[in-house]
Amino acid sequence: MTFDRELQRFDTAMQQLMAGELLVSYRDSAVPRTLVPAIDYAIAGEGKRIRPILVYRAAAVIADGAPPALDYAALALELVHTYSLIHDDLPAMDDDDLRRGRPTLHRAFNEATAILVGDGLQVQAFSMITQAPGLTSEQRVEMIARLSEASGFSGMVGGQYRDMEATGTDLDLDELQAMHAMKTGALIRAAVALGGIAAGGTSQQLQSLDAYAQHIGLAFQVIDDILDVESDSATLGKTGGKDEAAHKATYVSLLGLDGARAEAGRLLDAALAAMDALGSRADPLREVARFIVARKH
Amino acid sequence: MTFDRELQRFDTAMQQLMAGELLVSYRDSAVPRTLVPAIDYAIAGEGKRIRPILVYRAAAVIADGAPPALDYAALALELVHTYSLIHDDLPAMDDDDLRRGRPTLHRAFNEATAILVGDGLQVQAFSMITQAPGLTSEQRVEMIARLSEASGFSGMVGGQYRDMEATGTDLDLDELQAMHAMKTGALIRAAVALGGIAAGGTSQQLQSLDAYAQHIGLAFQVIDDILDVESDSATLGKTGGKDEAAHKATYVSLLGLDGARAEAGRLLDAALAAMDALGSRADPLREVARFIVARKH
Repeated sequence: MTFDRELQRFDTAMQQLMAGELLVSYRDSAVPRTLVPAIDYAIAGEGKRIRPILVYRAAAVIADGAPPALDYAALALELVHTYSLIHDDLPAMDDDDLRRGRPTLHRAFNEATAILVGDGLQVQAFSMITQAPGLTSEQRVEMIARLSEASGFSGMVGGQYRDMEATGTDLDLDELQAMHAMKTGALIRAAVALGGIAAGGTSQQLQSLDAYAQHIGLAFQVIDDILDVESDSATLGKTGGKDEAAHKATYVSLLGLDGARAEAGRLLDAALAAMDALGSRADPLREVARFIVARKH
Repeated sequence: MTFDRELQRFDTAMQQLMAGELLVSYRDSAVPRTLVPAIDYAIAGEGKRIRPILVYRAAAVIADGAPPALDYAALALELVHTYSLIHDDLPAMDDDDLRRGRPTLHRAFNEATAILVGDGLQVQAFSMITQAPGLTSEQRVEMIARLSEASGFSGMVGGQYRDMEATGTDLDLDELQAMHAMKTGALIRAAVALGGIAAGGTSQQLQSLDAYAQHIGLAFQVIDDILDVESDSATLGKTGGKDEAAHKATYVSLLGLDGARAEAGRLLDAALAAMDALGSRADPLREVARFIVARKH
């Protein structure tokens, strides 16, 4: 399994964003000169790029070709994801020193810069969609609506709050699932939705894609919990075993390692079943689902 | 001079938002129950509501009537303004304990909650515009584009960074002006622009409005600097005299009190001149300009 084509395409788009070659830029003369390196640092980290891959592949289910708007949508998703990590890592939140194998932004720069870069990346994501070439206004509004729902109080931000609130308490499986569906699931669903909308998907196609996305979003988190137990800091690129140390409920603490693996398998099956109506065009998304469950880091 | 009508209208809209009666709500069952009081607290504070007033009055220059979309736009502006205050007040930023006469959000709740509520309010602002009734998709996209530009790295966030970076250094008048144009001016321009766009303004009308907004935005800050020197904490509702204590360059430190007052007068004249083409329909905006320069708190 390989995502080389999408990863390469996304890296090129990211390089263009960082070089100020896209229609949206933070290399504007108005942007404070000393702020730019912090933005560069924030977005240059080596992520798994799951959300961009999903944007490209969801779009490919609907239509051939690869319009430039997909790059803007993929960047928007990754910027929102990146901002959320920056804020989650802050001392007042998870207080992490390491992220993607490098010092977190507030360690490499300072806390105030990390807060502001996060704030700015979030809004830059919306700019990306207003500027993406070749979309209708209706598509833009629909994409912005999906992205903002996914990121807000009933999505990512609310999920992060639930996670924080739950630390040291005993969540049951339903509560854990609800928290993850918001904290990470909502943005994964938005990635698939934005790709589908940008490619002109029908509402039926978008529904199938969304059912798929819901299941892989949860599967992603189950595997994260398994890897947190199995991995050490070196291979994970962040501080391993933190969940247990923080007394956080996880799929592993609730179901055991074997139970969590079985749950991931069930979620994979459900994700694949949701795509039955989409035929072989959806094979690249099926591959993503299998990768998410099989991944080792 | 009175803004009673707009203030009452905006308060009604805010009450509706807080009661979950608008098309966008944070009183969704998905939003964590204990997060809701923090959001309520954040947005219930008594602000001057300058940005909402500008939305309503800019729209009234263009067209009669008062479509509900204006309430959504006014709320969007106020939510972005409110989020920026919440993040600016954080210990890592300005470290303020008092805001609008009440404990700041991170004092009343905690730092992590304040970070997340700020993040969520920003994205809720964009949701407001995607959901506002009666706008064309083109209007929505244009409004979101303006709001995101105004809030981002080359707008409010960049201005806040410049301000932070400048503390303890000697800015000259041009640098001070550039900082304020970004930090507070950009969002004031966005308020006027969003009102104008929602009301269907021509590009020429929008240009006149924008020239007006640029000047009143700067005037607002000049007066803020004067009031910071003249007022004590009680009447200002925040800790007074902080600029001097923090060795921040201000219009008063650069121009003296009389020089700053003269500068405010020049900016007022320029704002009024920018509106010459708009006739008597623009009188309500002229009143805002005069109020901004005459205000005592």
